[in-house]
Amino acid sequence: MTERHDYHVDGAPPETPENDAAAGAWPETTIVGTRQPKVDGYERVSGAAIFPHDVSLPDMLHGAILRCPHAHANVLSIDTSAAERMPGVHAVITNKTPGAAISWYERGGQFYGKLFDDHCRHEGEEVAAIAADTFLQAMDAIRAIDVEYEELPFVIDDAQALEPDAPAVQEGGNMAGEPRVRARGDMEAGFAEAEVVVERTYRTECQIHAPMEPHGSVARWDGNKLTAWDSTQGVFSVQETLSKVFGLPMSNVRVIGHYMGGGFGAKLETGKYTVIAAILARKTARPVKIFLPREDCFTVTGNRPGNTMKIKIGATKDGKLTAIEYDSMGSCGAYRYGAGTGTLSAYLYQVANLHSVDTTVYTNAGKARPMRAPGVPQAAWSLEQAMDDLAEALGMDPLELRLKNLATGMQTEEPMQFTSNQLRACLEKGAEAFGWAKANKREPDKGHIKRGVGFAAGMWFYPGGPPATVIVKLHSDGSANLNMGASDIGTGTKTWAAMIVAEELGVPLDKIQVEHADTATTQYATSSGGSKTVPSDSPAVLAAARSVKHQLLHFASQQLELPVEDLEYADFAVTSTSNAEKTVAVTEIEMLGRRGVIMGTGYRDPNPEGTFTAPFCAQFCEVEVNTRTGEIKILRFLGAHDSGRVLNRLTYDNQVFGGIAMGIGLGVTEERVLDRRTGKMVNANFHDYKIPTMLDVAADHLCHPIDVPDNDFNSTGTKGLGEPATIPTAAAVGNAVANAIGIRVTDAPLTPRTIRRFLDSAGKEA
Amino acid sequence: MTERHDYHVDGAPPETPENDAAAGAWPETTIVGTRQPKVDGYERVSGAAIFPHDVSLPDMLHGAILRCPHAHANVLSIDTSAAERMPGVHAVITNKTPGAAISWYERGGQFYGKLFDDHCRHEGEEVAAIAADTFLQAMDAIRAIDVEYEELPFVIDDAQALEPDAPAVQEGGNMAGEPRVRARGDMEAGFAEAEVVVERTYRTECQIHAPMEPHGSVARWDGNKLTAWDSTQGVFSVQETLSKVFGLPMSNVRVIGHYMGGGFGAKLETGKYTVIAAILARKTARPVKIFLPREDCFTVTGNRPGNTMKIKIGATKDGKLTAIEYDSMGSCGAYRYGAGTGTLSAYLYQVANLHSVDTTVYTNAGKARPMRAPGVPQAAWSLEQAMDDLAEALGMDPLELRLKNLATGMQTEEPMQFTSNQLRACLEKGAEAFGWAKANKREPDKGHIKRGVGFAAGMWFYPGGPPATVIVKLHSDGSANLNMGASDIGTGTKTWAAMIVAEELGVPLDKIQVEHADTATTQYATSSGGSKTVPSDSPAVLAAARSVKHQLLHFASQQLELPVEDLEYADFAVTSTSNAEKTVAVTEIEMLGRRGVIMGTGYRDPNPEGTFTAPFCAQFCEVEVNTRTGEIKILRFLGAHDSGRVLNRLTYDNQVFGGIAMGIGLGVTEERVLDRRTGKMVNANFHDYKIPTMLDVAADHLCHPIDVPDNDFNSTGTKGLGEPATIPTAAAVGNAVANAIGIRVTDAPLTPRTIRRFLDSAGKEA
Repeated sequence: MTERHDYHVDGAPPETPENDAAAGAWPETTIVGTRQPKVDGYERVSGAAIFPHDVSLPDMLHGAILRCPHAHANVLSIDTSAAERMPGVHAVITNKTPGAAISWYERGGQFYGKLFDDHCRHEGEEVAAIAADTFLQAMDAIRAIDVEYEELPFVIDDAQALEPDAPAVQEGGNMAGEPRVRARGDMEAGFAEAEVVVERTYRTECQIHAPMEPHGSVARWDGNKLTAWDSTQGVFSVQETLSKVFGLPMSNVRVIGHYMGGGFGAKLETGKYTVIAAILARKTARPVKIFLPREDCFTVTGNRPGNTMKIKIGATKDGKLTAIEYDSMGSCGAYRYGAGTGTLSAYLYQVANLHSVDTTVYTNAGKARPMRAPGVPQAAWSLEQAMDDLAEALGMDPLELRLKNLATGMQTEEPMQFTSNQLRACLEKGAEAFGWAKANKREPDKGHIKRGVGFAAGMWFYPGGPPATVIVKLHSDGSANLNMGASDIGTGTKTWAAMIVAEELGVPLDKIQVEHADTATTQYATSSGGSKTVPSDSPAVLAAARSVKHQLLHFASQQLELPVEDLEYADFAVTSTSNAEKTVAVTEIEMLGRRGVIMGTGYRDPNPEGTFTAPFCAQFCEVEVNTRTGEIKILRFLGAHDSGRVLNRLTYDNQVFGGIAMGIGLGVTEERVLDRRTGKMVNANFHDYKIPTMLDVAADHLCHPIDVPDNDFNSTGTKGLGEPATIPTAAAVGNAVANAIGIRVTDAPLTPRTIRRFLDSAGKEA
Repeated sequence: MTERHDYHVDGAPPETPENDAAAGAWPETTIVGTRQPKVDGYERVSGAAIFPHDVSLPDMLHGAILRCPHAHANVLSIDTSAAERMPGVHAVITNKTPGAAISWYERGGQFYGKLFDDHCRHEGEEVAAIAADTFLQAMDAIRAIDVEYEELPFVIDDAQALEPDAPAVQEGGNMAGEPRVRARGDMEAGFAEAEVVVERTYRTECQIHAPMEPHGSVARWDGNKLTAWDSTQGVFSVQETLSKVFGLPMSNVRVIGHYMGGGFGAKLETGKYTVIAAILARKTARPVKIFLPREDCFTVTGNRPGNTMKIKIGATKDGKLTAIEYDSMGSCGAYRYGAGTGTLSAYLYQVANLHSVDTTVYTNAGKARPMRAPGVPQAAWSLEQAMDDLAEALGMDPLELRLKNLATGMQTEEPMQFTSNQLRACLEKGAEAFGWAKANKREPDKGHIKRGVGFAAGMWFYPGGPPATVIVKLHSDGSANLNMGASDIGTGTKTWAAMIVAEELGVPLDKIQVEHADTATTQYATSSGGSKTVPSDSPAVLAAARSVKHQLLHFASQQLELPVEDLEYADFAVTSTSNAEKTVAVTEIEMLGRRGVIMGTGYRDPNPEGTFTAPFCAQFCEVEVNTRTGEIKILRFLGAHDSGRVLNRLTYDNQVFGGIAMGIGLGVTEERVLDRRTGKMVNANFHDYKIPTMLDVAADHLCHPIDVPDNDFNSTGTKGLGEPATIPTAAAVGNAVANAIGIRVTDAPLTPRTIRRFLDSAGKEA
């Protein structure tokens, strides 16, 4: 009966180390940590990769959505009769259509808002939708819908929204929930202790996610089963929403998202377009595809709120922080979302006395969504410029000021230990690599072209963790299959996952097939967001690969008739450590042939309570400001990141450079412009909305990973990178500009006009 | 740290019973054993189910294959130039095309035969192939290929193939391997002991599988990755063949077969059409679909060989078998395959002295493939008619004769115990339900319409077993996902699998999503053939569901703060056995919400050595023979089957009725007719090749499962059913016809002409 045991080994022999961190770090790796092009690079470059936007099903119809053209209006009547007669039209739906009167946004288990609402609270609110044979027919037919609107007064300014006579965006008034307060210590005592105090108000503008692939979905019903090919960051989250909206068991909803063309947080939430496509598909009994026109991706699919942040910092003469007072306001647009920025001031530096208030207000504009480190780049814009301000007031090197005040743990009500904190290394090694000491002592330029250097620090607050389940299968020919639910949102998730399998099992990268992001066929994973995909899922991949390895060792031990302890797994073979002739190639392990595959399952362990995992970062830059025109040229950028162990140096670098580009957008070029007279966005296109181009980012980029594994509770030693990469960027540019021109420009983006405005106010001539 | 443990529980607490049979049978089941329509019934009936034949990919081309029109010929030259100029043609390939010179059939690790062979050994051998924009363009272009053939002498008769001057089908002569000999005891002594000896020669004709969905595949390349949508009984087997043929790691080959329209063994082997589609797809850089015309599905995709079986049985006067001598010959067609029938005579009855020889010869005809119990229905045709013959010679009820000689174990060189053997029950209970005793004593009919009754017994030799791996996932809303690699070849595999999950976890059948038959996304399974899918995979499904249940009990135990032993899983809740108020609904188990899913993995244990699992069966029928015309009318049929526990009584019945219909085809209506002058098949279509219709099968069908679980080593207690259902059918009809007309018609099919021929020979008038 001994043989029976062999078949239900999972994770194999009882002595198998479990996937805890004790099993540990890789002492030396040959693949992990190297530069590896994406495993799906061929598919991406050749066009073979099928993004949801590429999905074309037999008999598929195309949908289009009619949107409210006003910032604030009531729909008085809708006449769809002409539209229904347009060529190619198969279905028209409004909030009068049975099955389309769906409550929408969920908060705390409550649904509010509607799929189609007669009260349109912002430009672009959904009013009706059409499915037709072609996209252009659908767009034509949309225009034939006759809607009578009652235009309402609107408010688009955060502060005005709270004035007593402001138009009410939501029934309960324009406060979007209670202000969020963080407080500790004694503010009065803190500022009394201070010998130097700085205080300013900083502002950022609303930024749009603007991913390359528009938002959209293809929906198909088979009886009461719904399949959606969705451009999403998390297929399981979309599955759950569709299941709730349509009252279906989750088993009847399949969401597939094999490729997706960027999201940056905007594709964490299920889109109304997905549900509309599904309703149209059910009504027409045909698959329906809806991908939003580019304009809609500016107005209705989310944004990073603009913020007004008043910050006051006190310190002793030797640079020890004594108190921070922080007051931030932002708008979530017309529907509930938190537009706060308070975390960074509260936790980045050690400070005993803190009072921080975040106020979120409703305005008649598109709803905000999480965007690459929601709130934190804005927070850095204020905090990190204030720190430079303070350093100047103290007559101290801003680097020294930061190093004096590094946080020793999370200063929450129940303090938590950082599982690792390499912010000191980020600052010191980054400064060294950048040549900070020398650059900072440079004499000010005399002419109108003025150089300056600056840096900023940052941290991020979304540690990885369970649930994360991964399966690795080794085929009988020695190639492998890796099954994980996480979406690869363009960051290289599939690639590092394959690298871990390659490292652990010795299977070449090009012999590893990765299946992912399909609720029906892959393992459960949370959405890819919050920079937690790597720290959540990579330990599960490692654990699954180790399970396969342990099983192979176990079976080889039986075959070679040697104890497992005497065996070594190397060079795709299992060999006796005492007698190299006693060896069996992995593909010759009999049980592999008999079972067809060896399968290993891996889970992610949670970190213990009382600990907190945070990535840290510091970015340095050098800029050139033309004080005549107000134009900025960014000369060089260096990102020093503590994101734990580096898995793939190539995609790591790319994440950092991409994050810096997005931070430059926030700090220098990007800005949603709403027309004061109409409340409508006037730059909802790539011509007028200025995403940084190659000419706007630094010619000279340097990525300087600290690469110290965070191994106490995570076997791969990884922390997040995607969001930290964009956190300190704008602030670093702000500090460099101040260093160049001698005055602080508190309002982002640092467009020529803004810089000239501040220079004018300060009475500085070009 | 206790919490950490929770996350890598797989199969949960250490005390989890493993998936061995001891954990055991279901004492009472509420779903398993009932009649359940197929879970994919809607998809199948509505047309929503996408069979490989329905797959249509963007830019897909259609392929067609040029086949040799001669029974035996050499290709002297091929001119494809005209075909290449035909409209819509994108590629023409022959054995001169780089990449198309592929060795084909594998036997014992050796490849032989070619994808395209200049030596065409049978009608329909592949000569060239074309990919064009449409199927009709491809078929037109095929006709424009100019091939010069040298016609060769051919042989299509099995016995003639071994004559010295017979044309050589294969280079080594026309013996397809050494004859297979089974021998035990002392034949001379055995027949010396015999007091009664019967001896006759029985014949069957070649039968064609003829599944509803033609054979075919759609192939697509993405770089060096190949995906095939294949109408196959085993996606992993096709994956392995494609991997070998194209020299690709298995990880680069994905085979999908979500639905398929029947195979009966013909779709166990990878088709040349699949490889040709892949070659054409690589050459054109477009997906290519090849589905064979119906004619080709008669000539080149396999068949059940016709056999000539000489059988001699000796017995004592009281009916104890003393010796069986058996000599069978059949042709595998032009390529190697075993056409033997020797198993049944060797193992169905207890007999000490046996000599059995199976000879397989090459002829110039399409290659045989396994067909529903390969060899065994033919064997039953001879053995079971010989047993009736013997009973008559002994003046004994044929039922009594069988019951006296039931095998007590597998009479192999190393004897093996049956894990269960209910043949006695099949015979006795079947006879009782059929009313055998009374029917068998009926007076012979006087007119030209003569009624008769007959039965036959059978067994099958392909026990289930590992490898079989299944994953069950419970979603947070209480719906479930089941992941298994096995193909559902139309038998209801998905349905019984879902029923097991429903039984074990209490999830309703319509809340279980089944994913299967995709090498990339589902668990490894062997091909669905040999009637082993149920006994191989159902214990793995049960084990996976039990793993989920054990984890739920474990987590509920933590939540309720009660030991697992005090808890009961019922009504989709976990409840204290001592206090019904201490209860938690499954969907309220916190860890389910936290983890998103609870996943369980199940394996199939192997049976211990020295045991053998075999299903047994007996079928009874009543026929009416018109002795004037030779026509048969089958009045009623009863199948009594020992296939272990019945999972789904509805699909069980359907399997039995379908198997009987196929057996009637072998026994009464079906016959491949090769023209003696040309060697070509003259009835390669559904008009001339007579598959039984509703008018040919019995109006009155009764399925009588014995339903005794085979639980010693298999937790679901199941044995195979698909092939047993067709094993005794033809023989039962043969015995009933003999009973009706008083002479034995030894040659199948029992067409009017054959019956009249035998009546004429016997001098019997109408």
